[in-house]
Amino acid sequence: MRAMTTWNVYLAGEIHSDWREQIVSAARAANLPLDFQTPVTDHGASDDAGDVLGAEDDPFWKDHKSAKVNAIRTRRLIDRADVVVVRFGEKYKQWNAAFDAGYAAALNKPIITLHPPEHRHALKEVDAAALAVAETPGQVVEILRYVTTK
Amino acid sequence: MRAMTTWNVYLAGEIHSDWREQIVSAARAANLPLDFQTPVTDHGASDDAGDVLGAEDDPFWKDHKSAKVNAIRTRRLIDRADVVVVRFGEKYKQWNAAFDAGYAAALNKPIITLHPPEHRHALKEVDAAALAVAETPGQVVEILRYVTTK
Amino acid sequence: MRAMTTWNVYLAGEIHSDWREQIVSAARAANLPLDFQTPVTDHGASDDAGDVLGAEDDPFWKDHKSAKVNAIRTRRLIDRADVVVVRFGEKYKQWNAAFDAGYAAALNKPIITLHPPEHRHALKEVDAAALAVAETPGQVVEILRYVTTK
Amino acid sequence: MRAMTTWNVYLAGEIHSDWREQIVSAARAANLPLDFQTPVTDHGASDDAGDVLGAEDDPFWKDHKSAKVNAIRTRRLIDRADVVVVRFGEKYKQWNAAFDAGYAAALNKPIITLHPPEHRHALKEVDAAALAVAETPGQVVEILRYVTTK
Amino acid sequence: MRAMTTWNVYLAGEIHSDWREQIVSAARAANLPLDFQTPVTDHGASDDAGDVLGAEDDPFWKDHKSAKVNAIRTRRLIDRADVVVVRFGEKYKQWNAAFDAGYAAALNKPIITLHPPEHRHALKEVDAAALAVAETPGQVVEILRYVTTK
Amino acid sequence: MRAMTTWNVYLAGEIHSDWREQIVSAARAANLPLDFQTPVTDHGASDDAGDVLGAEDDPFWKDHKSAKVNAIRTRRLIDRADVVVVRFGEKYKQWNAAFDAGYAAALNKPIITLHPPEHRHALKEVDAAALAVAETPGQVVEILRYVTTK
Amino acid sequence: MRAMTTWNVYLAGEIHSDWREQIVSAARAANLPLDFQTPVTDHGASDDAGDVLGAEDDPFWKDHKSAKVNAIRTRRLIDRADVVVVRFGEKYKQWNAAFDAGYAAALNKPIITLHPPEHRHALKEVDAAALAVAETPGQVVEILRYVTTK
Amino acid sequence: MRAMTTWNVYLAGEIHSDWREQIVSAARAANLPLDFQTPVTDHGASDDAGDVLGAEDDPFWKDHKSAKVNAIRTRRLIDRADVVVVRFGEKYKQWNAAFDAGYAAALNKPIITLHPPEHRHALKEVDAAALAVAETPGQVVEILRYVTTK
Repeated sequence: MRAMTTWNVYLAGEIHSDWREQIVSAARAANLPLDFQTPVTDHGASDDAGDVLGAEDDPFWKDHKSAKVNAIRTRRLIDRADVVVVRFGEKYKQWNAAFDAGYAAALNKPIITLHPPEHRHALKEVDAAALAVAETPGQVVEILRYVTTK
Repeated sequence: MRAMTTWNVYLAGEIHSDWREQIVSAARAANLPLDFQTPVTDHGASDDAGDVLGAEDDPFWKDHKSAKVNAIRTRRLIDRADVVVVRFGEKYKQWNAAFDAGYAAALNKPIITLHPPEHRHALKEVDAAALAVAETPGQVVEILRYVTTK
Repeated sequence: MRAMTTWNVYLAGEIHSDWREQIVSAARAANLPLDFQTPVTDHGASDDAGDVLGAEDDPFWKDHKSAKVNAIRTRRLIDRADVVVVRFGEKYKQWNAAFDAGYAAALNKPIITLHPPEHRHALKEVDAAALAVAETPGQVVEILRYVTTK
Repeated sequence: MRAMTTWNVYLAGEIHSDWREQIVSAARAANLPLDFQTPVTDHGASDDAGDVLGAEDDPFWKDHKSAKVNAIRTRRLIDRADVVVVRFGEKYKQWNAAFDAGYAAALNKPIITLHPPEHRHALKEVDAAALAVAETPGQVVEILRYVTTK
Repeated sequence: MRAMTTWNVYLAGEIHSDWREQIVSAARAANLPLDFQTPVTDHGASDDAGDVLGAEDDPFWKDHKSAKVNAIRTRRLIDRADVVVVRFGEKYKQWNAAFDAGYAAALNKPIITLHPPEHRHALKEVDAAALAVAETPGQVVEILRYVTTK
Repeated sequence: MRAMTTWNVYLAGEIHSDWREQIVSAARAANLPLDFQTPVTDHGASDDAGDVLGAEDDPFWKDHKSAKVNAIRTRRLIDRADVVVVRFGEKYKQWNAAFDAGYAAALNKPIITLHPPEHRHALKEVDAAALAVAETPGQVVEILRYVTTK
Repeated sequence: MRAMTTWNVYLAGEIHSDWREQIVSAARAANLPLDFQTPVTDHGASDDAGDVLGAEDDPFWKDHKSAKVNAIRTRRLIDRADVVVVRFGEKYKQWNAAFDAGYAAALNKPIITLHPPEHRHALKEVDAAALAVAETPGQVVEILRYVTTK
Repeated sequence: MRAMTTWNVYLAGEIHSDWREQIVSAARAANLPLDFQTPVTDHGASDDAGDVLGAEDDPFWKDHKSAKVNAIRTRRLIDRADVVVVRFGEKYKQWNAAFDAGYAAALNKPIITLHPPEHRHALKEVDAAALAVAETPGQVVEILRYVTTK
């Protein structure tokens, strides 16, 4: 008995590798009943998202405007997600990924974290709020397959 | 006047008898406007649901991982259900069934319990939170038929 | 610019006159984007709704069982309604109508009351929680037409 | 082990008999840890509550203004109540009592109804949402005593 | 990867210029996945919305009835919106626009304000609750395009 | 029977007249069980509230920072209020007053508006969401006295 | 730095051993800032809690009435708890314990389970929703000491 | 007019410098009406918080247990906070700080971030959800002083 017609899966976090594409293509190959949503993953476009509202001299306010425009998208998509996958990569601070995880946790959304084992200690609070901790995109797909089609 | 296009009915609890199949087949035969959702009812698969994330030596953690993976499914389905049916069978502790009933009650979901009369005293707190207490799958179908098509 | 694809309108209250049919037929004639939901309006069926779960000697418990079975339907429909219309007729106590209005008010649902002018003083608390107070089904249809298609 | 320092009990409904005084005096005599709140029970004052904001020619608007002023009090007190007792008396429509019960039910407040047996059928939907159905103020006090001090 | 099938965008505020038409036509030209909802923008119809429920001598109550009928529409549409755009024009008090913005903010809806630069100081509290502050309809369309299709 | 130990009353809106002092001193003279909270009413201090975080060249960002600092206070106080009084004065746009009213309305807080009769038409949407519409501080005190001590 | 003045701890579940007394006395000996609340733990009184409302011939309805009276207490105490401890003992079905855990989980309350290791597999879904899994009352006290006073 | 008797301020984030002590001692010196709450800031104790529940061989599960025990404290304190201050220091990933900020944001808590300017770009999403962005503990104290005592 399939679980539900379609699940919304939001893919949050790191934007410097192709983990989203791996998950989406594997899910499509398996014909899983999943709709994927993502933040804007074009780094430059994301950083400049607020520029259309007027240029800023101070980089703090440029960042501020762009971060808020991006939040229009990210918060609505987390609100509507059935599952939130949060990826932490090898590099960078990725505080926005952890922020999204906290936001999703407070909304009681099921969270799957995806990160290499060396981040386990640093991510223990985030993992403690997750319902699954994966190391590879393939594991995420397996969990989603099990959850939605078993 | 029909009540609503389609109702989501989540069938929680005991997985060792064919009560779900009885309800679903009777509902389909009567062409009721119902979508049924269930937990994973393959006992072995459910117990091993977390194994894809890595094997565990300690059975507590194996259980823990699997229970959380299953929770991705069960909590979202309860969240989205219009009615939650909770079955308590003859055997086993079935604490997860009572847990799901409590979870559904706090979300103000209409609950139908399904159990033999000999469990009535032990289930009095759960039945007190239910809107219907049935003894047979046929009664559940009759209630759902009445609620959705009368 | 039309307001929204379709609105769910729940028609609560009195079941001894044809006010629901008047509203529904007028809305259909005007092709309004409305889905109507109602409680079970067959008085006998409603009173006996719990009998399928077993007969009761004590009329209090017979009523209790039936009222709960009906609540499976009424509460979910109020939860999902975009507008709740509550009709108070000439006769009977109709406490369930006022109960539904209170329930809808706490959920912040827009309420339209429908009752003859002689009930105005007795219904002042309910009317105070309503966004419109109508005397005729035709007025309800006009309000719904305005709200959804202007 | 006492349950909680103090419980807020809101006494809703009929204002033409001394049932509130009976409950409050018995609770005080028993030194129960209860704070009682009530609507304004002076019928004339309640009907004229809005007059300070300006007189109205139309009795509908006079009622409307007064009902809203009273709602400032009643809704906040229901919001803050740990238990809501709703009394239905022998006379009048008492739709505001049923409205308050519905409002409390949607907020998931424990409800105790208090009414004579002859209203049982007419109040079945309200009683179905209650956690206790009493016929006398003394029974209400016993329930509150048990709940808060046993 | 597109973000979500369709977004509901509620266009609140000023009704004396064609800013809504500019946004809608540009969005349609760009084939953006947006459904637009609006209040009733026919000023006369809006002012008279309550007249069908009976004429009023006192202009305060005429306004009151109409404002409530309009609220049936505006509150449901804000409740269901994914994004709320609030326009403040050159003239009039436009307190209803600010009221809608506050209502949307408390519901945690993403808000885009649209107003000329000379209102910046007077609107600083509203802008502080917004995720984007635009000066032209074209900027609003660009933000919506970015948010929903990038 | 007094209604509740103490009520929190938030006095929102216009800061250029002494209406708050009139309400507070009258309430104290009458020994009413009220705690009053207010926004920062020192106009200059309010406009400069963000300056301690660093000066801004662009007046928009100066306003933005100050408005957000003020929002720390105003939103928490509205969240905790039992009643919100919103004053609209003779002058200025006062969009923040209307914003606060909308915010309070979405949180289902009882609202009392206070404004001269000439603003009635422009404030009809705000008044429609209020439970009392007053013209003088004395009327507000009378309503609060009635609500909390009758 | 102490964490908070006082924490409310609700002790749910098994009533046939002295685990509550062990926790409370150890907490008092250590002067921990804890207020403990419990269900009625007098088994006979709990089973007969509804009798004051009138005797019942049918044991199902006797149970039903008593379970609802007890729910007045248990649900309010869970609603107000900062931490919920749920004990599963050696015997009985204890479905009410699991129900309370589910109820607390849906309200996002921190849960500490307390049970012997042999129940680990049967309680895996409940433990998966807990923030701590203890085997002895002493461990519960240690966790509470750490959480509230470290 | 002071704003509210006492405000709960939760100090989240970095635990390797004395920023909390600076804020608390300055607030006390100024006699501000603030109660401060913190996570456990003893790094070793925090890492070992779960050990009382039994030792773990696998460092992942040791971390997991401790993180959950700490979450009993941190989530309740965020739930009860009036303001959440989140500090990001010079070193470490500090994903738990960003997680707490996201959690607080979803609960609509006013957030003050505290970090050096070089983290501005990396923290733009977190800062975009904050109502104040400070660089020094002294600025945080000034904001809290203004918000609670002006």
